[in-house]
Amino acid sequence: MESIKELIKQFSIDRDWVKFHSPKNLSMALSGEVGELIEIFQWLTEQQSREVMNDPATASRVREELADVFLYLVRLADTLGVDLCSAAKEKMDLNRKRFPIHPAIDKK
Amino acid sequence: MESIKELIKQFSIDRDWVKFHSPKNLSMALSGEVGELIEIFQWLTEQQSREVMNDPATASRVREELADVFLYLVRLADTLGVDLCSAAKEKMDLNRKRFPIHPAIDKK
Amino acid sequence: MESIKELIKQFSIDRDWVKFHSPKNLSMALSGEVGELIEIFQWLTEQQSREVMNDPATASRVREELADVFLYLVRLADTLGVDLCSAAKEKMDLNRKRFPIHPAIDKK
Amino acid sequence: MESIKELIKQFSIDRDWVKFHSPKNLSMALSGEVGELIEIFQWLTEQQSREVMNDPATASRVREELADVFLYLVRLADTLGVDLCSAAKEKMDLNRKRFPIHPAIDKK
Repeated sequence: MESIKELIKQFSIDRDWVKFHSPKNLSMALSGEVGELIEIFQWLTEQQSREVMNDPATASRVREELADVFLYLVRLADTLGVDLCSAAKEKMDLNRKRFPIHPAIDKK
Repeated sequence: MESIKELIKQFSIDRDWVKFHSPKNLSMALSGEVGELIEIFQWLTEQQSREVMNDPATASRVREELADVFLYLVRLADTLGVDLCSAAKEKMDLNRKRFPIHPAIDKK
Repeated sequence: MESIKELIKQFSIDRDWVKFHSPKNLSMALSGEVGELIEIFQWLTEQQSREVMNDPATASRVREELADVFLYLVRLADTLGVDLCSAAKEKMDLNRKRFPIHPAIDKK
Repeated sequence: MESIKELIKQFSIDRDWVKFHSPKNLSMALSGEVGELIEIFQWLTEQQSREVMNDPATASRVREELADVFLYLVRLADTLGVDLCSAAKEKMDLNRKRFPIHPAIDKK
């Protein structure tokens, strides 16, 4: 993950694109990429969406869109100084409190 | 990253939510969370968006929304059997070919 | 539709919000509202999504989110000088050419 | 607006696409189109976004994306039995109460 962060950062520096990478702009780019991802699934049933990787052409498209979303997310978090893994772990601690596990009724 | 994947997976199993986690549904959840993130930046100037972490309350909100986006992205990639880091590295190889670095005109 | 356009424009003028209404910002606001709409449907089956108006509380939420999306879309189109109805009719002309009706195989 | 609603409905019937038009799927299609719209503005400054219609090629793209968003929104509202104009007017009534106009301090 650290290496991805450095890869995309260096890529942006080399092309003089850092000036475009305000959090505002990156949140828009992220949204645009998620839009491309959602377009893959929009007319599929849930079951079809589960089998999407069986078709090599679609699988490759899915893989590429997931990568695009991830890259912009990593870049956005980097410009904001947020460590995604730490933030995710903290959020999971919160989620565990917010959504306690329902005890099974018939637990013996 | 591996541990985040396991955390969110186990969390979903414990709450019997795996049945809801079709790629179709998860792409929608991802989109919803990106919407919450974008709402933070929508009325800010680019410059204000760069300074958003200076305000503790907003910083905490940004951190939480980034975590939510990341968690759904990790979960979605997991259900599709996609390794996000490998996919991102491959995409960066492609990007480097697609967008070659412009040689500086006055390079000596 | 014209009256909606005037309503939201006057509303923005009265609150001195016009300065925030650049097409860039409004496209983000639109995206944020669509995110709130999608959250209503994300864990529902397609069938459940068809029955969503049967529950008064959800129906009211759906109605409100649709209104929000519509209002930002009308405002965005207005700032860009685009007449939504004309643009939609033109696009439908294009769509009809792009996606010709398949002649029924067993047509007599 | 009524005629747009009928145009897109008939278009869908003629192509046997009504079966795909669950509110869930249409909310995804709407989100995908908003993603394409936001991509136009993501690297522009606010000022550049205000001048986007000066370039004929971009103007035509903006117009087409706005139309796509509008068409899916109209179709979605139709499947849910929601009248967009009534819903928008109701929402504006609410907004006026929620965000009262600040009286000018130096009003004479």
